[in-house]
Amino acid sequence: MKKEKIVLNNERNVSLTCYLQETGGEFRYVTRRPAVLILPGGGYQFCSDREADPVAFPYLRSGYDAMILRYSVGEDSVWPNPLNDYEQAMRYIRSRADEWKLYPDKIAVIGFSAGGHLAACAAAMSENRPNAAILGYAVTAGSFIRECCPSAPDVISRVDEKTCPCFLFATRNDSVVPIQNTVQMMEALDKAGVSFEGHIYAYGPHGFSTADTSVQSPDSAICSRAGNWVGDSIAWLRDVFGDFSSDGMTQPRCGAHVNADADAFLSVYCTLSRLAGNPEAMKILSTLFAQLKWNGGGTMPDPNADNFSHGMAGRMKLCDALAYVHVAPEVIERIDGQLKKIPNI
Amino acid sequence: MKKEKIVLNNERNVSLTCYLQETGGEFRYVTRRPAVLILPGGGYQFCSDREADPVAFPYLRSGYDAMILRYSVGEDSVWPNPLNDYEQAMRYIRSRADEWKLYPDKIAVIGFSAGGHLAACAAAMSENRPNAAILGYAVTAGSFIRECCPSAPDVISRVDEKTCPCFLFATRNDSVVPIQNTVQMMEALDKAGVSFEGHIYAYGPHGFSTADTSVQSPDSAICSRAGNWVGDSIAWLRDVFGDFSSDGMTQPRCGAHVNADADAFLSVYCTLSRLAGNPEAMKILSTLFAQLKWNGGGTMPDPNADNFSHGMAGRMKLCDALAYVHVAPEVIERIDGQLKKIPNI
Amino acid sequence: MKKEKIVLNNERNVSLTCYLQETGGEFRYVTRRPAVLILPGGGYQFCSDREADPVAFPYLRSGYDAMILRYSVGEDSVWPNPLNDYEQAMRYIRSRADEWKLYPDKIAVIGFSAGGHLAACAAAMSENRPNAAILGYAVTAGSFIRECCPSAPDVISRVDEKTCPCFLFATRNDSVVPIQNTVQMMEALDKAGVSFEGHIYAYGPHGFSTADTSVQSPDSAICSRAGNWVGDSIAWLRDVFGDFSSDGMTQPRCGAHVNADADAFLSVYCTLSRLAGNPEAMKILSTLFAQLKWNGGGTMPDPNADNFSHGMAGRMKLCDALAYVHVAPEVIERIDGQLKKIPNI
Amino acid sequence: MKKEKIVLNNERNVSLTCYLQETGGEFRYVTRRPAVLILPGGGYQFCSDREADPVAFPYLRSGYDAMILRYSVGEDSVWPNPLNDYEQAMRYIRSRADEWKLYPDKIAVIGFSAGGHLAACAAAMSENRPNAAILGYAVTAGSFIRECCPSAPDVISRVDEKTCPCFLFATRNDSVVPIQNTVQMMEALDKAGVSFEGHIYAYGPHGFSTADTSVQSPDSAICSRAGNWVGDSIAWLRDVFGDFSSDGMTQPRCGAHVNADADAFLSVYCTLSRLAGNPEAMKILSTLFAQLKWNGGGTMPDPNADNFSHGMAGRMKLCDALAYVHVAPEVIERIDGQLKKIPNI
Repeated sequence: MKKEKIVLNNERNVSLTCYLQETGGEFRYVTRRPAVLILPGGGYQFCSDREADPVAFPYLRSGYDAMILRYSVGEDSVWPNPLNDYEQAMRYIRSRADEWKLYPDKIAVIGFSAGGHLAACAAAMSENRPNAAILGYAVTAGSFIRECCPSAPDVISRVDEKTCPCFLFATRNDSVVPIQNTVQMMEALDKAGVSFEGHIYAYGPHGFSTADTSVQSPDSAICSRAGNWVGDSIAWLRDVFGDFSSDGMTQPRCGAHVNADADAFLSVYCTLSRLAGNPEAMKILSTLFAQLKWNGGGTMPDPNADNFSHGMAGRMKLCDALAYVHVAPEVIERIDGQLKKIPNI
Repeated sequence: MKKEKIVLNNERNVSLTCYLQETGGEFRYVTRRPAVLILPGGGYQFCSDREADPVAFPYLRSGYDAMILRYSVGEDSVWPNPLNDYEQAMRYIRSRADEWKLYPDKIAVIGFSAGGHLAACAAAMSENRPNAAILGYAVTAGSFIRECCPSAPDVISRVDEKTCPCFLFATRNDSVVPIQNTVQMMEALDKAGVSFEGHIYAYGPHGFSTADTSVQSPDSAICSRAGNWVGDSIAWLRDVFGDFSSDGMTQPRCGAHVNADADAFLSVYCTLSRLAGNPEAMKILSTLFAQLKWNGGGTMPDPNADNFSHGMAGRMKLCDALAYVHVAPEVIERIDGQLKKIPNI
Repeated sequence: MKKEKIVLNNERNVSLTCYLQETGGEFRYVTRRPAVLILPGGGYQFCSDREADPVAFPYLRSGYDAMILRYSVGEDSVWPNPLNDYEQAMRYIRSRADEWKLYPDKIAVIGFSAGGHLAACAAAMSENRPNAAILGYAVTAGSFIRECCPSAPDVISRVDEKTCPCFLFATRNDSVVPIQNTVQMMEALDKAGVSFEGHIYAYGPHGFSTADTSVQSPDSAICSRAGNWVGDSIAWLRDVFGDFSSDGMTQPRCGAHVNADADAFLSVYCTLSRLAGNPEAMKILSTLFAQLKWNGGGTMPDPNADNFSHGMAGRMKLCDALAYVHVAPEVIERIDGQLKKIPNI
Repeated sequence: MKKEKIVLNNERNVSLTCYLQETGGEFRYVTRRPAVLILPGGGYQFCSDREADPVAFPYLRSGYDAMILRYSVGEDSVWPNPLNDYEQAMRYIRSRADEWKLYPDKIAVIGFSAGGHLAACAAAMSENRPNAAILGYAVTAGSFIRECCPSAPDVISRVDEKTCPCFLFATRNDSVVPIQNTVQMMEALDKAGVSFEGHIYAYGPHGFSTADTSVQSPDSAICSRAGNWVGDSIAWLRDVFGDFSSDGMTQPRCGAHVNADADAFLSVYCTLSRLAGNPEAMKILSTLFAQLKWNGGGTMPDPNADNFSHGMAGRMKLCDALAYVHVAPEVIERIDGQLKKIPNI
């Protein structure tokens, strides 16, 4: 592994520490690697070492390259300095993707506490968006971020369908960054249709990092699940980015959105209610919709077949509804082709 | 293990299946057992076998007794029949606690989907409250519960500080019971100061139960974390109920509330902001508060020492703040004694 | 779940407790189930409840049916009574396989301590062989079994290629049943070419069962890995029996033997050394063997191409060696067809 | 983290790559760190990168420093060159322990395949013994090591009570390094009374390293448990070295030997049979031994009280036997003091 330290901004003491693993050679089928960009916490007053290297190691183990951004803090943290640091770092990393053998479209940010605020800003409002974001006991609500950085913005209100997929975690009894920050962020992601995973552990102190005994004193009152976010976030990245295989990275199993309702054109991945609201789509689908009078075995809804504009049935994706009534895959594909010509307005 | 089936209501076909393990004998130090009461899902139209026995087994393995309530469904599900079934079941179980060697104050409900709605009602509005509730892809919001049972009530609005600790889980892309049901329930628990743990897994179908291959087809698109709720909920119960030991159950490590701000009397477990708002408390604490000018190392706040009524410092519990500035345990205990005489108004 | 208790032998107090789960119905694709037959320990003096129900639960959870055999103990334990009890139990279970919806060829025995001795006897010398055996801190060596049952036989010497696949575990510092019993059993299985998995945990008391706090006091000095055998043995059974799928059980990923050297006829699953020793096989393979002058990259051996009768190359299976030098699958299949006509003598 | 590369032998191309983490500062209570010295495999022909950095990462994550020794290979591998490289490396590391903030007595070697042979030699026959050894699909038997390095010695025959505690793992169907190498090594450690933990996974290819998808192709036939050795070995090191705490490292929970039978002086940690064979010890213990007529509840043996020289009772440690019959701790301590004056001959 190569270690490289790049000074991004001498005046504000901004640097990027890069841990870059070999590709090819004995790692025969690993020709490029995905990466994580770590943003340590510290209330925008410092960058915590406890949320730097110890966080990098598990991702390195899983085949990722890892970079740690030490962004503007203290007097230099006046907004938008930290966000500019992030933009510069991400631009820089992507510019060297070929040389460093990285996938430029498989780079996640990981941020903690105030660094989690910065990571959430990257996810929701940056120009150089990450491809996924992991937010640890992150500050996201304006009222709380102002406690440590008065000029820093609220993030929750900025979440929209262009926000990247997020993995969030926190402890329920965190008194430094209350759980609202995480719960309201999940709510915003939900409304925007963005994919996410979220874990709120019963108890544990703010700033517990990986919960390993070498970073968080075993004397702390911290629940046994708190450290699970590490492995779970790696498994989640595997779902979102794909996994190593003898033939490059596999296809992701988890898309960026839960359905295609926010896409520019319609498709079978839109919900029935979205399609029901589009007259052009209904020209194609009306006969088909009449067939969707399934009998609701198992946990399936028994929709009012005349009206898919609301309720359980309305929330189903067309592809799932058609598969449920045994419409053949090739028919579904043909319908998809027709729908994809219709603008989603 | 003894299996007992009790008919609670012949007309509405309500029954309780009980799996009761041995105590004493070779289980030398197990003189009583905690228990789980399982409420299967099924849209208040049926009680799913996939969310009955397969759910009981892991808790049985962990030393719990397990009961399955088959409550009023279909035409009989008109409210409050299901809740009455629950009340009757819990009353019945507790009435036999001595005979069955159960801890009457260590009984959790576990509900799924519509059964999760019933479990949430038990947690938030029943007369015979459970001591903890596990809510799996539960319906909690009125708009959604009406889709399957028009007469059933909203739960979220009923959550208050008397609601028992909850463990919640769901999958982010559940289109049958949207994630709002879980997220808004967490929000309500947060506001009420109630302890909880919550897991939202990236993807998986509604009704996945334990995610084991014998209950959920491995062909399903279901993320690798989805089954973790089983072991995690058992570890969480251990935190909330205590664990088996050679001397009865150990003390819980997780209380029912995150602080004592809703208790009848003050204590060192109240937050600084709560205490700062009580003039009688401030008579005792004003000198002490002046000492709390800590220097804010690590992730600790640097409070305005004149005003603990808001911000990070205000959210700290007095006991934590005092420990942080190295006040001796016996002094903390003495202060606690004084505070506990002051009504929390 | 149905519970059934069957008395197998009234005089010797031998009984079979059966936990039988539903099939079909909501368990749509589960038309039959695999099963475990549990043989508790107790020095052939009693049958321990701590190694009965608590062991059944995790397998039940994983979709298995579970039976507990309480075999002849105390004065009745004179050999071959306990083995006869096993034979009767296994015959009985298989005779009801259709009625109980079991797979008669997917039944594992699980035995502990003296019950592990009985399970090992079942695996290595019974008439009604189990399809897999899980041996927990089992007594297998004659010198040790005589300490608790003077008439019971040594098992290690009876292991041959007809012994079923085994999963073994024990703790290194067990002073009641020393670790030789497990290590020598592994050695015997190795020599016989039988598949197995074995775990020797650093420390823990004899008789720790599942290591759960409700069966083994948390005050015990027991290492954190000791309870892993439960989940690992279930994953192993999945490898040996196959897993539930929407289309019956999947194909096993782990065969009963590591290669085909003990089969009645040759095949590409035999090792090169075995084939090299068979003149008829060499008529087919001599040209091919000349091609096997691979260059030994990675961890591959650089064999003496003239002689595959010993060394690393000799231990390879032909199918692996051919795949390694990129021989096409259809060629491998054709060779397999030819070899399967040659008796393995 | 600091990376340092030290050339140990220019001619033979021997080097030590060191990954050294911070101590103190924000890692407040971590004043020193334990370490692992990694010996990659490669048949003494090369040092595999797949068993170098990817192995270091999980130990780094757990708070360990990590060094990778690239020892003499190819023509330079003639014995004892590789062992001399190890000796030089371990001497060098310990000489810088103060500067690097390492615990000089908490350094484990981890070796794979041929590197596992070297690690086993370090454990059993070096001058600068490691404090623990992790042996991955290691070659230990002379007949096998000669296949890749004709001059390298057998290790199994060299194991004695001075061998350090070992953690071993391998896959049952490894055809490159057959399982005898691991099983016979366990047997030797058992005979020598040395603590160990051993895992033989059902199937997986030789050289699977951490089993992560970035080092071992997911196309391989490798069982789900194979990667568990990583976390298990870290938990084991925690047992053998102690864990991080706010007050230095905790006391180990697992000693280097299973009992004190090989110590220079007697103690209550000797077995009853060892003590029974020492006339001077029996002067102290004879009255006490008469009390040891316990009734054998649970899994305890019912010893012949007149003779502890063999059988289950004889294998018990005196301290366990006395605790079992409720002899007071202070009495046990007094006896221990008396026994510790008697030479163990």
